[in-house]
Amino acid sequence: MEAAAGPVALPSAATSRLPASVPIARPPAIVIAPDSFKGSLDAPGVCTAIASGLYRVWPDADVRARPMADGGEGTLDAVLAAVGSAGRRSLERVAGAAGDALDAPYGLLAGDGGPVAVIEIASIVGITDTAGMRAPVAARSTRGAGQLMRALLDRGVTRFMIGLGGSSTNDGGAGLLEALGFVLLDGAGRPVEPTPAGLATLARVDASRLDPRVAGADITVMSDVNNPLCGARGATAIFGPQKGVRADEVAPVDATLARFAALAEAAVGRNVAEHPGAGAAGGLGFALQLVGGRFASGAEVVADLIGLDAALDGADWAIAGEGRSDTQTLLGKAPLVVARRAARAGVPVTLLSGAIEPSAIPAIAPTFAGCFALPGGPSTLEACIAGAAVLLADRAEALARLFDAARNPQRAN
Amino acid sequence: MEAAAGPVALPSAATSRLPASVPIARPPAIVIAPDSFKGSLDAPGVCTAIASGLYRVWPDADVRARPMADGGEGTLDAVLAAVGSAGRRSLERVAGAAGDALDAPYGLLAGDGGPVAVIEIASIVGITDTAGMRAPVAARSTRGAGQLMRALLDRGVTRFMIGLGGSSTNDGGAGLLEALGFVLLDGAGRPVEPTPAGLATLARVDASRLDPRVAGADITVMSDVNNPLCGARGATAIFGPQKGVRADEVAPVDATLARFAALAEAAVGRNVAEHPGAGAAGGLGFALQLVGGRFASGAEVVADLIGLDAALDGADWAIAGEGRSDTQTLLGKAPLVVARRAARAGVPVTLLSGAIEPSAIPAIAPTFAGCFALPGGPSTLEACIAGAAVLLADRAEALARLFDAARNPQRAN
Repeated sequence: MEAAAGPVALPSAATSRLPASVPIARPPAIVIAPDSFKGSLDAPGVCTAIASGLYRVWPDADVRARPMADGGEGTLDAVLAAVGSAGRRSLERVAGAAGDALDAPYGLLAGDGGPVAVIEIASIVGITDTAGMRAPVAARSTRGAGQLMRALLDRGVTRFMIGLGGSSTNDGGAGLLEALGFVLLDGAGRPVEPTPAGLATLARVDASRLDPRVAGADITVMSDVNNPLCGARGATAIFGPQKGVRADEVAPVDATLARFAALAEAAVGRNVAEHPGAGAAGGLGFALQLVGGRFASGAEVVADLIGLDAALDGADWAIAGEGRSDTQTLLGKAPLVVARRAARAGVPVTLLSGAIEPSAIPAIAPTFAGCFALPGGPSTLEACIAGAAVLLADRAEALARLFDAARNPQRAN
Repeated sequence: MEAAAGPVALPSAATSRLPASVPIARPPAIVIAPDSFKGSLDAPGVCTAIASGLYRVWPDADVRARPMADGGEGTLDAVLAAVGSAGRRSLERVAGAAGDALDAPYGLLAGDGGPVAVIEIASIVGITDTAGMRAPVAARSTRGAGQLMRALLDRGVTRFMIGLGGSSTNDGGAGLLEALGFVLLDGAGRPVEPTPAGLATLARVDASRLDPRVAGADITVMSDVNNPLCGARGATAIFGPQKGVRADEVAPVDATLARFAALAEAAVGRNVAEHPGAGAAGGLGFALQLVGGRFASGAEVVADLIGLDAALDGADWAIAGEGRSDTQTLLGKAPLVVARRAARAGVPVTLLSGAIEPSAIPAIAPTFAGCFALPGGPSTLEACIAGAAVLLADRAEALARLFDAARNPQRAN
């Protein structure tokens, strides 16, 4: 897919403090490709702040803003921001995690083989779904995600990009499967709710009524989680507690999901519960792989969707970033993906994050042309979050001045 | 004066994390010329920490460590560290600010026109003089500084470099003048103490017995303070309170120093109380100028003494810094002097300080090839101070990686 030139709104360079007479051999081309700074700025906002700092040094810089995402919250915005007129945002009324009606956003991108739907699970059964967040995790379901897929299938969509980060659910994806046609029954042949509570009495799974269009669909599942569905590294043990699963519930809920998975796998004739990412989004990664979805790095897919490689082509410098960098960053987070692609393109990439975990620096440092954080001195997390845009601009300005001085050794500073 | 190659101990480059196979066109030459980070690391310690970060990126870098100072605390150490075997440190027993015996350090440098004494007032009547600090400011005197000068004159020294920062006294330099031969008398012809309390009853100043060797001496007074002796911008009003002058004492003490200055000026036949720097070190700047001292920027004099220009010659990059940078930085502090000289030498200079006051960035930024601070994330002042060496190394590594990537565009990172 051809990405349009980044339509993210950037500040004017007119207020630059550099005297106009400073000679610049060629305006540098700089790719800005940060993830969102969670709780502070979305990725387009991070791009805008960094760009304003760069323009202070290079008023005519060729700034290529490519907000990144990793399949979680912000993925849809990042993709739509990057593709411009090649994509549009729509809403579909579906069930939120607790069953309340919710207008789920999704994107439709013009693709060579027909439209591509971009779905962000975080915006359907995630933290923005306040009714769902108030319900106990045992009563939350991914049914709405399946409803959205079905509605899109009705409209002829056959290609799906589904970002799994930021879900509030832990239903093994049972809700999605039920919405797509699976029948879930208890020992007496009565339907059970596709929730952790309902699945506790699950006895039989009938996959024969699965919407036949699902099998023909091209489903890409975007995540940065490699966990299996069950066990010590499974969805319930690792991510359950932050969603409200009590410590004493972890084992029984895990066992419930394991039985559900065994029955569903037997019904389909495919085993995916141990696949990497089956444990993503409370097991939605399992359900989507069960119906043929291909698991992929969220950041890699987003990088493709937003045309990152094209932006890097011929660039002099790239800036990646995220709210907080630590050793997890090297496990496929957005900055690592930007760094890999920049390295392939021969473009140095600098990391500018809200914070850098000091103990991770030996591991992270060799990957980047410098790792930098926001604070200009001792400060609180709250101050960094509240002042992120100003701090980003000031840090970007400083990085640009150093880059410019190093690139142009014949000029005194 | 020829400066020896920086003998500051630097860490080994053997632990660099860069693979040895990375091609480096030429090992870069980098001047490290920070001021001390007050309360945390002395300037040689800052150099060592920064160098260890640079060596991670460039194991064979030509690192030229030139610890800076501005005439205050650390000036003597910085000069002796830079000149190596051309200087030696000695001690002379003199009176501290409250009259207690104190071994005052000083340096003797080999100079073309005979030895040069380097004196740091902070180490005689300053914050390291605990007995003096316990005495009330009204009872503190600069007599010990005059005793040290006299002892050095006795040994044939005719050239003095006297750094004024960091004093605890506010005696108008009366103690120094008395030690050099001035006679201070009250209305009944009795000697008065050369302290703010004693000067309150001063009625007559006799300069006729001033040591005649003082007139022939070459005295350079190093300071970064331009205040006059008295008035609203004078020593008592501006610096008195931090030395213990109570708010209600400022006016009477200022009047006492004004009368002392008028009498002393009349006795010598020279008016210097309004000269820039007369108010430095509680008026010691007045006394030294009264006996012929030439006032100079502390950082400029130190830069000369440590051979900063020679170090910058042919260098690729310089790093300056201080504990905290703000708009005062541009009023002749060490980083500004390093920046000026680096600009003359065509060498870009980056500022790496403990903290950068955000509101000062618009004023400071254009002077440097990037202004950077220590923290890698939200943190307390105490953590920054305690972890300064580790943070400096990590920040220097990041700066070096960016510099290296920008300088060598043909290499991917």
